[in-house]
Amino acid sequence: MTTPLTNPADPWTPATAEKATGAKLTLRPVLIDTYYENVAYLHKDCDIYRAEGFQALSKVEVHAEGHRILATLNVVEDTAIVSCGQLGLSKEAFAHLGLPQGHVVSVRQAEPPASMGALHRKLDGERLGLDDLRGIVRDIANHRFSKMELAAFVVATNRDEMDREEVYFLTQAMVEVGQQLDWHETLVVDKHCIGGIPGNRTSMLVVPIVAAHGLLFPKTSSRAITSPAGTADTMEVLAQVELPMDKLQDIVRTHRGCLAWGGTASLSPADDVLISVERPLALDSPGQMVASILSKKIAAGSTHLVLDIPIGPTAKVRSMPEAQKLRRLFEYVAHRMNLALEVVITDGRQPIGQGIGPVLEARDVMRVLENDPLGPVDLRQKALRLAGRLIECDPDIRGGDGFAIARDILDSGRALAKMRDIIHAQGPTAFDHQHPHLGHLSFEVCANAAGVVVGLDNFQLSRIARLAGAPKVQNAGVDLVCKLGAEVIVGTVLYRVYASFAADLEFAKQACAQHNGYTIGAATDLPHVFVEF
Amino acid sequence: MTTPLTNPADPWTPATAEKATGAKLTLRPVLIDTYYENVAYLHKDCDIYRAEGFQALSKVEVHAEGHRILATLNVVEDTAIVSCGQLGLSKEAFAHLGLPQGHVVSVRQAEPPASMGALHRKLDGERLGLDDLRGIVRDIANHRFSKMELAAFVVATNRDEMDREEVYFLTQAMVEVGQQLDWHETLVVDKHCIGGIPGNRTSMLVVPIVAAHGLLFPKTSSRAITSPAGTADTMEVLAQVELPMDKLQDIVRTHRGCLAWGGTASLSPADDVLISVERPLALDSPGQMVASILSKKIAAGSTHLVLDIPIGPTAKVRSMPEAQKLRRLFEYVAHRMNLALEVVITDGRQPIGQGIGPVLEARDVMRVLENDPLGPVDLRQKALRLAGRLIECDPDIRGGDGFAIARDILDSGRALAKMRDIIHAQGPTAFDHQHPHLGHLSFEVCANAAGVVVGLDNFQLSRIARLAGAPKVQNAGVDLVCKLGAEVIVGTVLYRVYASFAADLEFAKQACAQHNGYTIGAATDLPHVFVEF
Repeated sequence: MTTPLTNPADPWTPATAEKATGAKLTLRPVLIDTYYENVAYLHKDCDIYRAEGFQALSKVEVHAEGHRILATLNVVEDTAIVSCGQLGLSKEAFAHLGLPQGHVVSVRQAEPPASMGALHRKLDGERLGLDDLRGIVRDIANHRFSKMELAAFVVATNRDEMDREEVYFLTQAMVEVGQQLDWHETLVVDKHCIGGIPGNRTSMLVVPIVAAHGLLFPKTSSRAITSPAGTADTMEVLAQVELPMDKLQDIVRTHRGCLAWGGTASLSPADDVLISVERPLALDSPGQMVASILSKKIAAGSTHLVLDIPIGPTAKVRSMPEAQKLRRLFEYVAHRMNLALEVVITDGRQPIGQGIGPVLEARDVMRVLENDPLGPVDLRQKALRLAGRLIECDPDIRGGDGFAIARDILDSGRALAKMRDIIHAQGPTAFDHQHPHLGHLSFEVCANAAGVVVGLDNFQLSRIARLAGAPKVQNAGVDLVCKLGAEVIVGTVLYRVYASFAADLEFAKQACAQHNGYTIGAATDLPHVFVEF
Repeated sequence: MTTPLTNPADPWTPATAEKATGAKLTLRPVLIDTYYENVAYLHKDCDIYRAEGFQALSKVEVHAEGHRILATLNVVEDTAIVSCGQLGLSKEAFAHLGLPQGHVVSVRQAEPPASMGALHRKLDGERLGLDDLRGIVRDIANHRFSKMELAAFVVATNRDEMDREEVYFLTQAMVEVGQQLDWHETLVVDKHCIGGIPGNRTSMLVVPIVAAHGLLFPKTSSRAITSPAGTADTMEVLAQVELPMDKLQDIVRTHRGCLAWGGTASLSPADDVLISVERPLALDSPGQMVASILSKKIAAGSTHLVLDIPIGPTAKVRSMPEAQKLRRLFEYVAHRMNLALEVVITDGRQPIGQGIGPVLEARDVMRVLENDPLGPVDLRQKALRLAGRLIECDPDIRGGDGFAIARDILDSGRALAKMRDIIHAQGPTAFDHQHPHLGHLSFEVCANAAGVVVGLDNFQLSRIARLAGAPKVQNAGVDLVCKLGAEVIVGTVLYRVYASFAADLEFAKQACAQHNGYTIGAATDLPHVFVEF
């Protein structure tokens, strides 16, 4: 199994083998989304299946004219999917191979990816070097690992299985395997939050404030994976976010900032594959988080990063020692990668702002930019503090002055003007933020006891917003009325849920009936969080 | 995500939810073999897909009338596979659900299996208790773990991640989750080899010898998974091996032994699922091996087991300290499970016997039983020693007398007579072992240097036999001519390869050209193995 397949001095190179056996099949797409795993479908009566001694779940190599991919084999007994003589490929696998339907391809049992040796050393508890991790990351980015092998890697590098040096190597390898942007400036700023707090749309305020100050802030964001809205989803309510790279670069050069979706550039492609395994396994280890976030930022060309780590009982990080440990790992790797990093530890006890879901969050953001008295104060305050930290990256600004500068930019309307420029440049939508159309179906969730709101469950409120349809249904979500510390009586409205489809509304109602996400208690029960920010 | 779905006091029990949303689909089998993972196929335009907020690779629960399974979701865009309004299930998943095509089923996002908490504690490096492992094993046996979750479990319990107490708990849990046989006798013997040595068909000699002595020996074996022949494959050349449980019990009662395939009884069903992940990951950790082997033996009702651990440079175990460590773990767990265990450490430097492949191995076995001078001496010797150890389980036999008794049974023809009885009872085939029809295509592999045979690569010779078609093609395989220590000159035939299909022959030829599995050197290069047997 370990003999190289393409040794030119070897009489049994693939070309000869194909000639000898005629193991050729015609290519056929199988429109099944197997979510980042290449799957090949072969009919069970196919000669090649018997001859090669394939077994279900064998890995096979599919190749023709220099194109080649590895795929996991599924055996099929239905000619409506594939017939004898055909090779089916799942949606993504077909795209990766990049050959047209009907093309003749060869298939054979795949050599294990070259980095299997390194993976097994890690499984045996050994430290890996930079070249080991380069090999693994290259194979992962090229979809040569099966889901099981990915899970094995993720578990073997979980917890404290990687030391900080290995996390640095992993980060470096993840940067190298993808595209890297170069903005040709000495100061390129970015901000990032480790996630878990609904409504936390500070980027859409921080970018216009900091760009208005003049720092280069080419912000690319993800769409929601498990949350009811990512920055890209919310920005998409106001403007186009899927921009070709050259247009994005034009906008950044002209306006000093953008708010785009990051998926169009192939920055840190291994990260996307790893996330496809970490998420279903609910694994989010410090080492993997650090490598994932920093590799994307460095690949995007950032030189200065402010990183937001929220703490709270239902946040990703639940205690200050845990936050400090994570901070130190971020700082170590950032230092090795020559990225100037400032970590801020913030209050993650409850959602930020009022709305949860793309339209509701876009409304909150625009209210803050317009200095509307209805704009959520916590969102404004957090954005100003983050923007202040970034502005202090400017060597012309005295430490400590950042907040006031950010506040002046926001209060004077310069941030709003900058946001309008960015929206116009990216391509505005018809959205009217002063009269947002929320989902036409809604219900209210009310307090069933008198007292003080002492808990909002970030996780459950996210889940309710998602069940209501967010982010796919832009105007669905949750609009919070009461937040921590609010005094309520029986019947006080805690929040409203909006949906556009009856089924979504029902699912959200069921979830609210099980647990509405609020805890009512005495003022003394309010959780305290000592944050430095 | 963690709220129970079926709380009768909860107004949002599934029945209500279904009524409210009409989330009903008609069942359709999708003839794809996904190898032990339940996969559900849903069309991307299906209402339920959008409404439930499903994402690819979500786990879903499919249920109707008390039948329910969990499955991984694949999203499909081809109505030839599933249409809107249909729910497709992969081959095994369809069988597990046990409802007919066209039946109306409901589908919803699945609660995570109850044992996910225990899995995550193990991922965090904690020790697990018996109840934790019971929960995990139950969920695994019921196909509630995805491939990725299985891989996570297998990696998290790899190496020394489980202490011996946990290995015992795992073994116990694996026994409890399946069927358990009770032979109503105080002495039920069995033998097992940890594998990796081609041609090692001692069971087909040990069973007739020991059963002829009178001990109860209900031997059930597996088919080959990665090897060119399992005992079940080789026995199948001579007799039926797929026997219903009641017939098998009749045979054992009448003849004191059998040589059947073990797959018909659902003994240790979790083991089959775990193996489906361990094999592609090439993970075979001591803890998992011990739990796998001992759970199957105990479930099969064995009271006394002789376990064969071969050592050699290309065996599974490569050094004596490693063998001793493995032996101690086997002994600890067997003791806790009240199984009398004797471990023998044997010579695993090369294949046992002459033939590799079902027909060739059946020929070797029959030659030994018939005391034919062509019968391989190493196979005879090893079988006699193992049979001797088992015979000494008989309280009427003095320690040390077993070997001689076994030899007398074999030499006198009583073992052959017993084998004929067993073959006749199970259902004989038309196979003529004196004139076995080997594959009509063949080639010889010859020495390309003069010297002494100092190495036979178990792995490569297995691979060549598999490529030649074994075990699917019964009369394909490798017939060894020279073994360790043989003196050869250039052109001496080392072995012959037999195949029935031209493509198979070519594949085997390619493998031989890359590495023929033999090392020729000086007599002083012969590897020494200090075995106790």
